[in-house]
Amino acid sequence: MLQEWKAMEKPDEEEIKARLAAAKEKLAKQQLLIKEQKIPVLVLMEGWGTAGKGSVIGQVIQNIDPRFFKVESMGEKSEEERRKPFLYRYFRRIPEEGKFVFLDSGWMDEIVKDELHGKLSDEDYAKRIESVRRFERQLTDNGYLVMKFFLHIPEKEQAKRIGHLEHEKDTVWRVSKNDLWQNRHYEKCEEAFSSYMKNTNLPSAPWYIIDAKSRKWTELQVLETLTQGIEIALSNQKLAVPLLQNVFPLVRMPLLAEVPLDKEIEADEYRKELKELQNRLGELHNRLYRKKVPVIIAYEGWDAAGKGGNIKRIAGALDPRGYEVHPIASPEPHEKARHYLWRFWTRLPKTGHIAIFDRTWYGRVMVERLEGFCSENDWMRAYNEINEFEKELHDWGAVIIKFWVQIDKDTQLERFNERQNTPEKQWKITDEDWRNRDKWDAYETAVNEMIQKTSTSYAPWHILESVDKKYARIKALKIVVEELEKVLG
Amino acid sequence: MLQEWKAMEKPDEEEIKARLAAAKEKLAKQQLLIKEQKIPVLVLMEGWGTAGKGSVIGQVIQNIDPRFFKVESMGEKSEEERRKPFLYRYFRRIPEEGKFVFLDSGWMDEIVKDELHGKLSDEDYAKRIESVRRFERQLTDNGYLVMKFFLHIPEKEQAKRIGHLEHEKDTVWRVSKNDLWQNRHYEKCEEAFSSYMKNTNLPSAPWYIIDAKSRKWTELQVLETLTQGIEIALSNQKLAVPLLQNVFPLVRMPLLAEVPLDKEIEADEYRKELKELQNRLGELHNRLYRKKVPVIIAYEGWDAAGKGGNIKRIAGALDPRGYEVHPIASPEPHEKARHYLWRFWTRLPKTGHIAIFDRTWYGRVMVERLEGFCSENDWMRAYNEINEFEKELHDWGAVIIKFWVQIDKDTQLERFNERQNTPEKQWKITDEDWRNRDKWDAYETAVNEMIQKTSTSYAPWHILESVDKKYARIKALKIVVEELEKVLG
Repeated sequence: MLQEWKAMEKPDEEEIKARLAAAKEKLAKQQLLIKEQKIPVLVLMEGWGTAGKGSVIGQVIQNIDPRFFKVESMGEKSEEERRKPFLYRYFRRIPEEGKFVFLDSGWMDEIVKDELHGKLSDEDYAKRIESVRRFERQLTDNGYLVMKFFLHIPEKEQAKRIGHLEHEKDTVWRVSKNDLWQNRHYEKCEEAFSSYMKNTNLPSAPWYIIDAKSRKWTELQVLETLTQGIEIALSNQKLAVPLLQNVFPLVRMPLLAEVPLDKEIEADEYRKELKELQNRLGELHNRLYRKKVPVIIAYEGWDAAGKGGNIKRIAGALDPRGYEVHPIASPEPHEKARHYLWRFWTRLPKTGHIAIFDRTWYGRVMVERLEGFCSENDWMRAYNEINEFEKELHDWGAVIIKFWVQIDKDTQLERFNERQNTPEKQWKITDEDWRNRDKWDAYETAVNEMIQKTSTSYAPWHILESVDKKYARIKALKIVVEELEKVLG
Repeated sequence: MLQEWKAMEKPDEEEIKARLAAAKEKLAKQQLLIKEQKIPVLVLMEGWGTAGKGSVIGQVIQNIDPRFFKVESMGEKSEEERRKPFLYRYFRRIPEEGKFVFLDSGWMDEIVKDELHGKLSDEDYAKRIESVRRFERQLTDNGYLVMKFFLHIPEKEQAKRIGHLEHEKDTVWRVSKNDLWQNRHYEKCEEAFSSYMKNTNLPSAPWYIIDAKSRKWTELQVLETLTQGIEIALSNQKLAVPLLQNVFPLVRMPLLAEVPLDKEIEADEYRKELKELQNRLGELHNRLYRKKVPVIIAYEGWDAAGKGGNIKRIAGALDPRGYEVHPIASPEPHEKARHYLWRFWTRLPKTGHIAIFDRTWYGRVMVERLEGFCSENDWMRAYNEINEFEKELHDWGAVIIKFWVQIDKDTQLERFNERQNTPEKQWKITDEDWRNRDKWDAYETAVNEMIQKTSTSYAPWHILESVDKKYARIKALKIVVEELEKVLG
């Protein structure tokens, strides 16, 4: 894109001054509308070294109240970030609704650098591009405004700037090794930037190439483009987003009503198998730690189906330093203010660790759907978004095991009554449980749809028949052991 | 995409049979919903030679009432098609709402073939990809379901099939030169197919690669994918589409109220200039015919502003064999049933010809907007869609000249009254003109927005001050002459 790109004609000083004043005033007004209409704005500032990314961000934020924005400068990856999926460090920095986040270079910079320095195979590069496309599209589908700028300067201009900075004691530190490398390999870098931008030039999040030769003119182009982008985002607020076609391979699954629930296990057999399986799982845990395989175990199921006890039997076999259980309740305000997957992205395990989720991101298509906590369009879109999320985890190398803990309505009633009538168990039963029970049929419809639409070949659902809780525990352990053995060989 | 692709496991005969029956029943039901909900469905069947594109289309259509579908087999380009923009032959074949069109290979086939045979430079190939992305996205944004299949067979299977066909007298004609070429250059073709599909794998119109080794299994995969696609399209019907960011360079334009209307020309001067300019235009017309430059002149303006007389002065200078005037009235039913740009795509000039539009595609953002003939989302999206349309024409090599013929409200009243009171002019004034006049202010807002948002550097608006009609005619002629001289050198 850079090679074909033509700079707009630069207006004269006077015009720049007048238009700058107008654009600043506009942005100052828009920040309040952004706040009011709860739009999260992510501004990605990429470009050549010494093109002035930091300084233009500095200029732009002067027009925004400090409570409404955050600037993030992406430095080297921390050890923790290296042990998370590629997108982790970016996803966790996405803005809350009504606020701006400015990223001083981001995922483009990382990917292109890795490519240029031979750290990515062609196949991995292609996967990164795919990830970025999905990431950005998911953001815009969920109401985010994503503005991507590339500050462009010619080879000679870059050389001149590097020269100036190196000449002064006070500024020489600002020239990085990478700036020098870029200038020496300008054409190669230009090629790489271009092809990255061409590949990620989404209709809903296009690239804006900015002629960054002069300071004021750069500021003006960025401000005018940003305010124009905000204008469009403001008119988009009320719109829903079309559903996408499914492109993931689905596994055929039974309806809940078709699952026989008469399976049970004898007490002796149970004790024996439990011990055996837990021992094997313990060993596997050590091996996956050494092989740095991340594992995600997701539990969903009816109230009182026995999720808690089931999780306990898995966790009981694991080294406490290597796993975490995440009980998922209603989102907190700062979580609700972001993409609904944000609170799961930020709870992902490190490589070699196990994360067990007691309730999950599937809340979107169950409770949020049925209680109207999100729009119809939101939950209908979520099947695909979740398949994409799990694909991302799978491509990262994670083992994903999803359990639906199944009982029938009568069994639930029995267990509810028992809880109600047993003083030490009463805390386990709330009015909400009874209310949910009244909606059993609606939930069953939603769960069936969820299981049909999100049982991908890389992350299928497993149904645990849990009228006999012991049976369900052994089955869960067996599945976990099998899945881990598959990847550990 | 083909290299990484893994075939799904083929089910046994019995399962295929059962699932085929179910899929066929589903499609038979869906065709009525498609009709009812007025969804146009475009099925693109691409793939290797001898993979069975034609035969799978033959199987699928057996489940659809013949009134609801059309099969188009894209052969060689006609002479006329060669003189139109690349997308012309595809755009003109898009289905009406509620109907299916099956394309037996289409734009993918054309582009990849041209690329493989060295007929497209890298730059032109990139442009084609960009065109295809916009084309497909515009279709899905406008409610089209676009299903893209690629029938895949391995090299050996293709060789075997070619052998079989060549062996029989009755079938040898079915082996094309291209099939043979493909098989000899299988890897190279695979590479080209893959990269094309990767580049055009839109979220709203993804590629489906079909394992085409066995007939029934191919049919099943296509039917199941198609019915799943239709299901999603049916749930999308009520949704609006988010607006896109503008990525085209815009020219700054005045508001209508800022345009002084006191310009005039003396009668003598007018006659002299008219003659001179018409002579020059006549000469230019010959040259652009020889150089095969297509020209599109678009007129919009207030009722009674003088569009007709203005057009007459342009047309008067042209050779009648080389131009056409298209008066644009309300769309007919078969036009209304398609993408709103369809009736303009099908009226494009051939290379070397001039098309003059008396009212245009801008009806979308004026009369259709103000009279509620389309939804708010439709007309808001249209600015970008129109910029894309004109970009397509510009990239094809067309000169695009857009005139807004401007008068003030008093001048219009004078001319209306004059028409009313002059028997031979009464046909020119209707009740509708008076009704439109009542909405002057709303129209002015819409026209201003249109001029601001669609004055791109490659197709800017020109405002013709037409209180003095003669002045406007001379100005129009001068602009046309200038623009043509620019491209003819």
